[in-house]
Amino acid sequence: MTTTLIETHKAFGGEQRKYRHYSETLDCDMVFSLFLPQQTDNKPTDLIWWLSGLTCTDDNFSQKGAFQKYANQHHMAVVMPDTSPRGTAVADDEGWDLGQGAGFYLNATQEPWAKNYRMYAYLTEELPQLVYALIPNFSGKESIMGHSMGGHGTLVIGLKNPERFRSISAFAPILNPSQVPWGQKAFTAYLGTDETNWAEWDATSLIAESPAAPPILISQGTADNFYDVQLNEEAFLQAAEGKKVRYEKLDGYDHSYFTIATFIEDHLQFHKDCLK
Amino acid sequence: MTTTLIETHKAFGGEQRKYRHYSETLDCDMVFSLFLPQQTDNKPTDLIWWLSGLTCTDDNFSQKGAFQKYANQHHMAVVMPDTSPRGTAVADDEGWDLGQGAGFYLNATQEPWAKNYRMYAYLTEELPQLVYALIPNFSGKESIMGHSMGGHGTLVIGLKNPERFRSISAFAPILNPSQVPWGQKAFTAYLGTDETNWAEWDATSLIAESPAAPPILISQGTADNFYDVQLNEEAFLQAAEGKKVRYEKLDGYDHSYFTIATFIEDHLQFHKDCLK
Repeated sequence: MTTTLIETHKAFGGEQRKYRHYSETLDCDMVFSLFLPQQTDNKPTDLIWWLSGLTCTDDNFSQKGAFQKYANQHHMAVVMPDTSPRGTAVADDEGWDLGQGAGFYLNATQEPWAKNYRMYAYLTEELPQLVYALIPNFSGKESIMGHSMGGHGTLVIGLKNPERFRSISAFAPILNPSQVPWGQKAFTAYLGTDETNWAEWDATSLIAESPAAPPILISQGTADNFYDVQLNEEAFLQAAEGKKVRYEKLDGYDHSYFTIATFIEDHLQFHKDCLK
Repeated sequence: MTTTLIETHKAFGGEQRKYRHYSETLDCDMVFSLFLPQQTDNKPTDLIWWLSGLTCTDDNFSQKGAFQKYANQHHMAVVMPDTSPRGTAVADDEGWDLGQGAGFYLNATQEPWAKNYRMYAYLTEELPQLVYALIPNFSGKESIMGHSMGGHGTLVIGLKNPERFRSISAFAPILNPSQVPWGQKAFTAYLGTDETNWAEWDATSLIAESPAAPPILISQGTADNFYDVQLNEEAFLQAAEGKKVRYEKLDGYDHSYFTIATFIEDHLQFHKDCLK
């Protein structure tokens, strides 16, 4: 199993890298991006996972997220996986919200998706081992964050693995996918019509049964076009009662990476505080 | 003459906007991006021009430049024009370093370019009036900066108009286009083979005869693949002797926007100091 460095750029004292590897879990070639902070005196390096939203690749956050300055200050590595399996041999759909670029970070059970669309297994079993090996002085401590569909993935992966992640944060996450059009379309395709199989991939169902949920920070722009229909928080916050959830509205901010760039400093500070 | 707002995003307290208008100078529709800082108590707003490099549009700096935080702090508006005239009725070339996306910020005299490729006139006569009108409490004070081909444009426009600009800065600029492959190809096409017509578009010729040159900051990455052949500084620095030029090498940094994002804070501080 080889991981090939295909790009590297010095950035804010650290290195913004891109790697390619063959994923056995997804049965296709994959790329991911990795920011490594400047290496000084063997300081332990924490690891932050970033999961992007629909239509994105590993490039969106690395190029538009404006996070490197703060990750370097906090001595954090940040890994940015792709949002789905990829390639001409991988099933796809004409819609931008299903298939390649729209893996929803779950393990599909339905055809034609079941063969490749196993992003949850990829992100919890295969990729971590590759990434850990690339981080000098890895502290063993991890947190996870994401945007939109990646916010959904972040919550699901974080809540299913509370012993692994010290904290979870999300920008404009899909909080209750079983109840909104994006989630219903994807879950029907990937998981089938029996909705009892959806609950284990829905953050609202998961948080209700997560006594050990890590601290969670969620930021939602009030000018986000997707807010009303796709990203409503009511059911999630009700299910999350008693858990450490900070839900904040960002006045006048939208669904774009301009919002993420503006508030990424706060999110990384939140993770830093939890990783201490 | 109408300027239409086609996009706006709140960013770092300010607004990252995009406009469309018909340019009489270029005889085609054009877009440009404009960052406006948060408006507080009628504070005067300075204006910074950003000129991008080959293959870029107005989007590269707005999305990858990570400048908005500092522009907002300094109460600067930042305007990002496109890099050439555009459209199916506009002459083009198969190469990525000539034609659309590669206007070189000059006024072409040769066919088929002369009709539309008048970026210098556009940036000094037409666009400023449109932009000034969009800035609340415009102070009347301007500076200019750019990258690569846009660094060349920045130096040429700044040196030809020293009364207009308080300061000039550039990342990895083409400093002596008459003597390097990118410049020779573009100047031959746009200006013809008579090299005596090239000098007025070459920063190295211009600075030698600019007694009133504004202060200049130039940053050049040492790991920039284009450095040796296209971006060499020797002739320029020789011609600039006695002028206020700060030329700094960035150890290990390349030609990408990761370099710009890393050092944009320093460049905007330089302009702020000159705009005081």
